[in-house]
Amino acid sequence: MVTPASVDALLNPRTFALIGASDKSTFSTLLHQNLVAAGHEEHTFLVNPRRTEVHGRTTYPSCVAVGRTIDLVHVMVPAAAAADALRDAAAAGARAAVVLSSGWSETGPEGRARQDELAALAGELGIAMLGPNVLGLVNVAAGIPAMALSDPPTEPGPVALISQSGASCGAMKEFAAMAGVGLSHVLTVGNEAMVTVGHLVDALVDDPQVRALAIFMESIKQPEVFAAAARRAADAGKAVVVLKAGRSELAARAAASHTGALVGDDRVVDAMLADLGVVRVDTVEEMLVTAGIAAHTGPLARAGIGVVSISGGACDIVADLAEAVGGELPELSAATTAALQERMPDFGHAHNPLDITGAAIIDPTLWTDSIAAVGTDPSVGAVLAINSLPWREDGRPFYGQKYVDAIGAGAAQAGVPVLYVTQTSQPVGPQTREVLRSGGVGHVVPGLRLAVDGVARIAAWSARRELPRPEATAVAIPAVAAEPLSEAAARDLLVAAGVPVVPSWHVRSADEAAKAAAECGSAVALKIVSPDIGHKSDIGGVRLGVEPGAAAATYDEVVAACAAARPDARLDGVLVSPMRAPATELLVGVTRDPDWGLLLAVGFGGVLVEVLDDVVLAPLPADEATVLRMLARLRGTALLDGVRGRPTADREAVAAAVAGIGRLAAALAEQHGDAFDALEVNPLRVDGTAVEALDALVTWRHDD
Amino acid sequence: MVTPASVDALLNPRTFALIGASDKSTFSTLLHQNLVAAGHEEHTFLVNPRRTEVHGRTTYPSCVAVGRTIDLVHVMVPAAAAADALRDAAAAGARAAVVLSSGWSETGPEGRARQDELAALAGELGIAMLGPNVLGLVNVAAGIPAMALSDPPTEPGPVALISQSGASCGAMKEFAAMAGVGLSHVLTVGNEAMVTVGHLVDALVDDPQVRALAIFMESIKQPEVFAAAARRAADAGKAVVVLKAGRSELAARAAASHTGALVGDDRVVDAMLADLGVVRVDTVEEMLVTAGIAAHTGPLARAGIGVVSISGGACDIVADLAEAVGGELPELSAATTAALQERMPDFGHAHNPLDITGAAIIDPTLWTDSIAAVGTDPSVGAVLAINSLPWREDGRPFYGQKYVDAIGAGAAQAGVPVLYVTQTSQPVGPQTREVLRSGGVGHVVPGLRLAVDGVARIAAWSARRELPRPEATAVAIPAVAAEPLSEAAARDLLVAAGVPVVPSWHVRSADEAAKAAAECGSAVALKIVSPDIGHKSDIGGVRLGVEPGAAAATYDEVVAACAAARPDARLDGVLVSPMRAPATELLVGVTRDPDWGLLLAVGFGGVLVEVLDDVVLAPLPADEATVLRMLARLRGTALLDGVRGRPTADREAVAAAVAGIGRLAAALAEQHGDAFDALEVNPLRVDGTAVEALDALVTWRHDD
Repeated sequence: MVTPASVDALLNPRTFALIGASDKSTFSTLLHQNLVAAGHEEHTFLVNPRRTEVHGRTTYPSCVAVGRTIDLVHVMVPAAAAADALRDAAAAGARAAVVLSSGWSETGPEGRARQDELAALAGELGIAMLGPNVLGLVNVAAGIPAMALSDPPTEPGPVALISQSGASCGAMKEFAAMAGVGLSHVLTVGNEAMVTVGHLVDALVDDPQVRALAIFMESIKQPEVFAAAARRAADAGKAVVVLKAGRSELAARAAASHTGALVGDDRVVDAMLADLGVVRVDTVEEMLVTAGIAAHTGPLARAGIGVVSISGGACDIVADLAEAVGGELPELSAATTAALQERMPDFGHAHNPLDITGAAIIDPTLWTDSIAAVGTDPSVGAVLAINSLPWREDGRPFYGQKYVDAIGAGAAQAGVPVLYVTQTSQPVGPQTREVLRSGGVGHVVPGLRLAVDGVARIAAWSARRELPRPEATAVAIPAVAAEPLSEAAARDLLVAAGVPVVPSWHVRSADEAAKAAAECGSAVALKIVSPDIGHKSDIGGVRLGVEPGAAAATYDEVVAACAAARPDARLDGVLVSPMRAPATELLVGVTRDPDWGLLLAVGFGGVLVEVLDDVVLAPLPADEATVLRMLARLRGTALLDGVRGRPTADREAVAAAVAGIGRLAAALAEQHGDAFDALEVNPLRVDGTAVEALDALVTWRHDD
Repeated sequence: MVTPASVDALLNPRTFALIGASDKSTFSTLLHQNLVAAGHEEHTFLVNPRRTEVHGRTTYPSCVAVGRTIDLVHVMVPAAAAADALRDAAAAGARAAVVLSSGWSETGPEGRARQDELAALAGELGIAMLGPNVLGLVNVAAGIPAMALSDPPTEPGPVALISQSGASCGAMKEFAAMAGVGLSHVLTVGNEAMVTVGHLVDALVDDPQVRALAIFMESIKQPEVFAAAARRAADAGKAVVVLKAGRSELAARAAASHTGALVGDDRVVDAMLADLGVVRVDTVEEMLVTAGIAAHTGPLARAGIGVVSISGGACDIVADLAEAVGGELPELSAATTAALQERMPDFGHAHNPLDITGAAIIDPTLWTDSIAAVGTDPSVGAVLAINSLPWREDGRPFYGQKYVDAIGAGAAQAGVPVLYVTQTSQPVGPQTREVLRSGGVGHVVPGLRLAVDGVARIAAWSARRELPRPEATAVAIPAVAAEPLSEAAARDLLVAAGVPVVPSWHVRSADEAAKAAAECGSAVALKIVSPDIGHKSDIGGVRLGVEPGAAAATYDEVVAACAAARPDARLDGVLVSPMRAPATELLVGVTRDPDWGLLLAVGFGGVLVEVLDDVVLAPLPADEATVLRMLARLRGTALLDGVRGRPTADREAVAAAVAGIGRLAAALAEQHGDAFDALEVNPLRVDGTAVEALDALVTWRHDD
């Protein structure tokens, strides 16, 4: 059981033991070197029963033999000896362990069993175990470089870095140093047999030193722990920026329903991360830079990005990049425009992005005044000031210090965060940071792409935080058995959940059929009602486009055909419903994901879903506002706006119907637990304000 | 008139005059400083009639007063004095000029007129003029830093950099230095009143020092010059990598036809650049890194990218990035896999990307052997070796030199180019380059994204180079007048061009109509034939779904309705054609772009074109192979593969019909020149092997 206290024991140890310390081991050498360099020499003990001296120091045959309380042990012995090492550690009082050894779940089923046993043992011993198959952890602010990493960071910053991969961690830490992104922690989690990313996020949210998190992961262990921690982070205004590898491994689900087949794993992850308020990125650079931006700005008050640059070329590139990633570059208000034009009469109209031209070379205060103006525009939530910076660390004074000073002065007058952005990605070393510090500039982002990507993502994250979380609304539905439902029964469920359904008459005689068809006043469909017949149309159980006058005769034909083909089946009359003209059709489904639970999927029927896979997902509960946002994210969303001569769809009505379908699925899951597999409405017909389900299918999962 | 000789005069001057030299001018100061530092002091003359001394040197009142032949002048006087400066320069023998002054077309119509006059004057004087509104040029190999740029590059490399923007040029040059991309030239072109990007590309293609070009442009001046030069560069195997800003400014065309409206400017540029074998990118970093890769590799023999890494995390990120940009990571052959497995028995199956794991820390030759194996795989055209590199330039020896050496040894055994790739973007300074040089590593790319993007683009460019250029095939068509054509006349044109058309009978009596309908044997459409009636259906001139028995009566009704509604119109009977069932519909159009000439557009009819704007463009001539590639690039291309119960389309037949439409448009343009505006076939119906045009429209452009 991992608790906040046990994670704290892991992150804040004062005494250390290296079990399996050895001069031949790179891990041991780096760890010892780091701990000594950070002043922990007298609290670091080397354990190796087969050597008397390692790293030039006396060893102990065991942790217990040290004769002092050990807070954290690093286990570097082979996998087979790890359990004994943990027992020894526990006996010496250790509450935390980092298991660096390999030979666990990454090697196959045997290794996995060994790993499970080790985790169980750690639990019994009251030890919080990081790993196995990790490099350790650095708590930068506490001065604890308890990690087999060369050159661990020593200057604390606001971004906690967590990496599943140890091998990539060095590169990440180096990029953070290069890009000027300060780190509070560097944590590797490896196989996550016990302490997972979620546990660490949960602990770090409460650390005032941590203002944003950057996480590289290949899988999400203990999703419920991660989900709860991610929500807490979002609520606290601390962005969790995740590089989750595996977008291209869209392993198709083995699911019976059409919707299920559309739900590729990565799309589920994508939908869940978005729902949890996690910022997802594609590269290590984006991960660290975006977290660095978020740590500096916190949540933005508005989505609009203001851009001020001395280069027209940079303005053009920024405009293109912003469109590509969905960043908003709002038009400036009349007041802002007037203020800028008064200040810079030669400009003509002042646009965003704002090119202040070479005039700012001669008059640096143009920087100050334009940043102040753009930064107080009512639609702007953050300002990017694009200018050059030195990167060579050659000791030469920066000729452009006066521009940095002017930008810093502008930032002080802007009502929103201002980021200094260089035109291309470049290092931000000590000399550069001094240039910025002296100019009063709070944060720099290296390169236009990283800046625009990062700010756009933080703006979207900020907006999402403001949204109320959808509440679960229970609907009362009839009790049904967990077995195939007739179309009439499925209809009744939809009606009970408040989902509009095409009118229909459940008739049990030719006369009733004729009467129902006459009431429709148009061509009708007749479908046999039977819980025992799945593929109705194969045996003549469905007749479409029947004129009212022919309804009675058709009733008899349908019943006779089914009775002949399936003498065993229970027949319960026929469903009569009006034929509908072609219109926009949505496909709405709810499936159960093993990790994340019930997921709602919405897509357009026809070409868009089948050729372009145009489906949007969200976890339940999903209220009407959630569904409206899902509809807006469909690539074919304009289909609802009256293209091709169709009437404009009533999106509110569509959202109500879709949300109702979600509530029905939740009610079925409530009734039947895991036996409920999926609910699919295909199609949900949308014709202007007329929204109705034409067909519904409920599937169940059985142990057999 | 810009000639190769005049561009040569611009790029290779030996004597220089700075007209308008001044101690107060940053331009003048930087230029003088650069030329002096490069050893040109005694060949550099300062011209200023109002000062006797500038930059601590004696000035001359004019170029003529120098008394020596001046090769290149830099004009820094105000716009109004520039013409006199050129005359003075010409009198002193100058054949080339760089006009740094501003106040030209960038300021409006007056400035544009002044600029046109200046360009005309330069032409008369036999001077090749760069600019106006530029910073100048650096010919690195020749040691000529004739540019107002701080820290111009001095170490020559293989990439020529051309930038329309002077303000961004410094950042570009700095990034090239940081990323280890060597530059042969830095050229700013500004307003391109005379010498354009195309002229420079044309000259640089023949320079053996130049192996790739990186170009930043906001517009493409003299497209025909650029096109010819770009084709020459592609033929020479020198990649032209272009960052063309303005993707987001999709100004809609004011064109009458539906197709025309779909052709946004940037899409035309995109299609043309692709056709010219130009590599288009989105950021300065991509531009320079991609050009650097191309300069090192040249055209790749195969599209497949092999990846070898010590980090599994990096492998995952690369796989995701490659999928996103369309890079191919082929499965390795059985022989490669066997070789790798023999070498590394613990691996299990050897995949691409190949994770050689931490085992390579202990045994660096794993690097050598795996790169050699992957690099000789029959599907691999280039190998990315992902490993760390130092970047701090702190003088410390690199602990990983042995890995660099091992990678270099593998590269020597690989049959294809090998690129060393760092996990994240980082500087490649002198110390790092020495690490690489000593390891025999030829080229390094900083960061996974830039490497995968760049190599994928160069692979696509290489494949495109291998394609034969489509040849124009003339078709004989009847002569038509440049005025509205009846549907029957448009049909005849399609038939003449070999485009299959829905069968139809041009009938001139009710009897003939009945006979034609009977021959069809199905419901038919009747449409009035008249060159004078545009919107036929508005006046009862079209009747659809007419049963054969009703054809005679309907003929009379149609003719009567049209005669009544339009007594003035010339009526020429009726076109009878069979009704067609719904099938896949393509929209095929040819429009005339003012810059690039005739462009073929192909898209799916219906939802895909209207909601998703799914259209692909290519210039004419476009042969069947071109059209097949266009069809493959449509997002909805799977519609041709038999989704939704439709038969699989005969793509060859579709391509033949579309290519025929292109040839018809070319023939109409041949007949009528610019009066031909557009040809649109909407729809081209595709039903398995049945491909036929259902309707065609020719529009003309008239001076009135």
